[in-house]
Amino acid sequence: MSLNNFFNPKSISVIGASKNKKKFGYVIIENLIREFNGKIYPIHLKEKKILGLDCYSSVTDVKEKIDLAIIVISANMVPNIIKECSKKHIKNIIIISGGFSETGNKKDEQVIKKLIKKNNMRIIGPNTIGIYDSCSGVDTIFDPVCRFKRPTTGFISFISQSGAFGAATLDLVAFQGIGINKFISLGNKIDVDEIDIIKYLSKDKKTKAIILYIEGIDNGREFIKICKKVSKKKPIIALKSGKSKKTKNAIMSHTGSLAGHAKIYSGAFKQSGIIEVEESDQLFDFAKAFAQPLPKSNRIMILTNGGGFGCIATDEVDKNKLVMASPYESTIKNIKSKMPDYATISNPMDLIGDADSERYEIALENLMKDNNIDGIIVIILMQISTLYPNIIDVLLDINKKFKKPLLVCMMGGKFTLRYTKILEKNGVPCYSSPEKAVSAFKIMVYYKNILEDF
Amino acid sequence: MSLNNFFNPKSISVIGASKNKKKFGYVIIENLIREFNGKIYPIHLKEKKILGLDCYSSVTDVKEKIDLAIIVISANMVPNIIKECSKKHIKNIIIISGGFSETGNKKDEQVIKKLIKKNNMRIIGPNTIGIYDSCSGVDTIFDPVCRFKRPTTGFISFISQSGAFGAATLDLVAFQGIGINKFISLGNKIDVDEIDIIKYLSKDKKTKAIILYIEGIDNGREFIKICKKVSKKKPIIALKSGKSKKTKNAIMSHTGSLAGHAKIYSGAFKQSGIIEVEESDQLFDFAKAFAQPLPKSNRIMILTNGGGFGCIATDEVDKNKLVMASPYESTIKNIKSKMPDYATISNPMDLIGDADSERYEIALENLMKDNNIDGIIVIILMQISTLYPNIIDVLLDINKKFKKPLLVCMMGGKFTLRYTKILEKNGVPCYSSPEKAVSAFKIMVYYKNILEDF
Repeated sequence: MSLNNFFNPKSISVIGASKNKKKFGYVIIENLIREFNGKIYPIHLKEKKILGLDCYSSVTDVKEKIDLAIIVISANMVPNIIKECSKKHIKNIIIISGGFSETGNKKDEQVIKKLIKKNNMRIIGPNTIGIYDSCSGVDTIFDPVCRFKRPTTGFISFISQSGAFGAATLDLVAFQGIGINKFISLGNKIDVDEIDIIKYLSKDKKTKAIILYIEGIDNGREFIKICKKVSKKKPIIALKSGKSKKTKNAIMSHTGSLAGHAKIYSGAFKQSGIIEVEESDQLFDFAKAFAQPLPKSNRIMILTNGGGFGCIATDEVDKNKLVMASPYESTIKNIKSKMPDYATISNPMDLIGDADSERYEIALENLMKDNNIDGIIVIILMQISTLYPNIIDVLLDINKKFKKPLLVCMMGGKFTLRYTKILEKNGVPCYSSPEKAVSAFKIMVYYKNILEDF
Repeated sequence: MSLNNFFNPKSISVIGASKNKKKFGYVIIENLIREFNGKIYPIHLKEKKILGLDCYSSVTDVKEKIDLAIIVISANMVPNIIKECSKKHIKNIIIISGGFSETGNKKDEQVIKKLIKKNNMRIIGPNTIGIYDSCSGVDTIFDPVCRFKRPTTGFISFISQSGAFGAATLDLVAFQGIGINKFISLGNKIDVDEIDIIKYLSKDKKTKAIILYIEGIDNGREFIKICKKVSKKKPIIALKSGKSKKTKNAIMSHTGSLAGHAKIYSGAFKQSGIIEVEESDQLFDFAKAFAQPLPKSNRIMILTNGGGFGCIATDEVDKNKLVMASPYESTIKNIKSKMPDYATISNPMDLIGDADSERYEIALENLMKDNNIDGIIVIILMQISTLYPNIIDVLLDINKKFKKPLLVCMMGGKFTLRYTKILEKNGVPCYSSPEKAVSAFKIMVYYKNILEDF
């Protein structure tokens, strides 16, 4: 059975709908009304209307076809509801409700598993926050938008075994202006697991990079086999948690999943062409870099209007075993002829604190054309008043004109963040520290090597 | 000569004042008017008034005493201006202007050095953005506040050899709600250097932690000697840049300073009791932790309402060779008796997604009293609507009541950031990822050991 109805249903039924603003069954309907264009059928035993929508006492009372059911009722009632869904020929179901194997209740999970097989259904969950699809507007996340702004549309899809980690990360990246394509919280994985979703996303044209937060994988061999194939098409960036003994117990009790040994996973990831991260905030830092073309090799150019930043970035290039590019003499000469004497025209290239957008434009035009340079990191201090915000136009124009990876680093507060968001939206990844930008470039080189090694 | 007039002058003269909004001489006066309570004397050859202030053609025309002079005129004119300052008995001078040894102009620097000695002056710079003192309102940073919001008052003082890195970092931490006490950009260091400032800050009661961004140190022995003393009183957290050969050239051309070998510096830092960071964003992540009391040992408790976060934090505790605390059986029993069955009452402790402030309060009260626990990291998902913002009151009350380190991790967007700022303002350090919170706790343990080892 296809997973497509999870992401592109024409109609959704919310079983356990509510008029109580604090209930998940209210928040989900409120969020669906906002962004989802299809039909919404709230199910509640007594209510006639919820948020202006006609309410039904069972899915079987709905005459129209239902593509996707979202269940938010108590665990013990779920098996019966699944039976009703089967009568209504609903094939795709998300069980938001917790209270299953993660709390010791394996019985109800077993019953549901049998029903799935019998009725050829696909189920995400239970114990999940479900799905957020920025294109179709499917949004089962029960956090209200006043607390958790949804990300705009982007090319990254994100699979998270943990709902909490997934939601908080989405909220953070939305704030940074990073787009998302699809988000899937796996929960207890009684049916749909990371392998199913990775397979689906590999064929999804809107997804160009896959992020995976995983605590435990049940079918290791299949996972490696699939990821080996998919990582040749799209980068897969993963964080594995549950490396210590203590964590294993914690995972057992929160998603009912068995966590495996760190080294085994790292080995499997490497074998599968997966990019493993060490820290959670690297997931999106790395994934968003793939908005850019891959570098031909590892020779990097650092361009800045703040000397100290140039130094920090250069150290980081060294630490990451990348190479500081040596531009052609003619490139240096061309740039020098148009810059004030006090600018430092080498690599790192320091256009000095009083640099304006024009200086950046001259430097970038020349550096982009130089075949000794495989990628450019531009570090910009937006705080300085001599630099007008039209530097953003310069960057976007240069980015369109040349097929060479361009990463930006801008560190700062509200004013800086405003322009960070514009760059992100237009496919120019933007980092809050030089170290992060350099690490991202390293990962681009790493992925390029993965593609060549296979 | 004391450095005190740099931070607490009663009167300031700005030499090179301007009516042109784009000029540093305008922005600095505008910023001083906003926050500085003393007298301001703009100096300009022709103007009579600037921003409503009486303007003088020379400092010698000012009748009243001038405690601090800020110079923003061309390098070649600076020596003469210093002579005028000496006539006026101004002992503290900040030379903002660039164009000295960093661009090859050593001559003017030499002249100024001689004048300093002869007249018993103290000079910060040249080629610097100077000082920001959040208490006195001295602010020589020439970036306008619309682009760069100044931080509120805090206990961290920050010495940066690079003005650009300093400014961008301040802007970033201001946005995160982290306070600053004093900021000093050293520039070319022809007189006042990091040693002078560290000595001054060691006696400054408002400064409880010192951050240092350094590219090169000229007097290594003295530096070690002083830092050894000061780090016994206050933590010093440092980032050394200029570790690769390429960086050394870059540093030479942007602050005229010689960068030394990384290992020599790391050794010197260790010997001096300095906490060296690997990445720039760790500087404030670590420093702000010292708002909390030091832990007795390394046994840490993880408390959360998001299982995945508990796992990530536990992995990080393991990775950092800290110890997951084992609470007393009675603690576990007490907490269990007041929690729903599905909560995981161990370490990590998962209060589950529907946890409210009361659940956190019960857990924290019990965990704080437990002598098997040396510190607590509380990870909170503010996105969930069942958790009311009064969780912030719970945290602040608990923090007041107990003398045990409490670090918070909240990941998210605008809504979350609002509460992050309140926590920071009230001395509860708040981190955007579990990894960052655990690393900060590790540094607290590390500093505690430094204090004991000396």
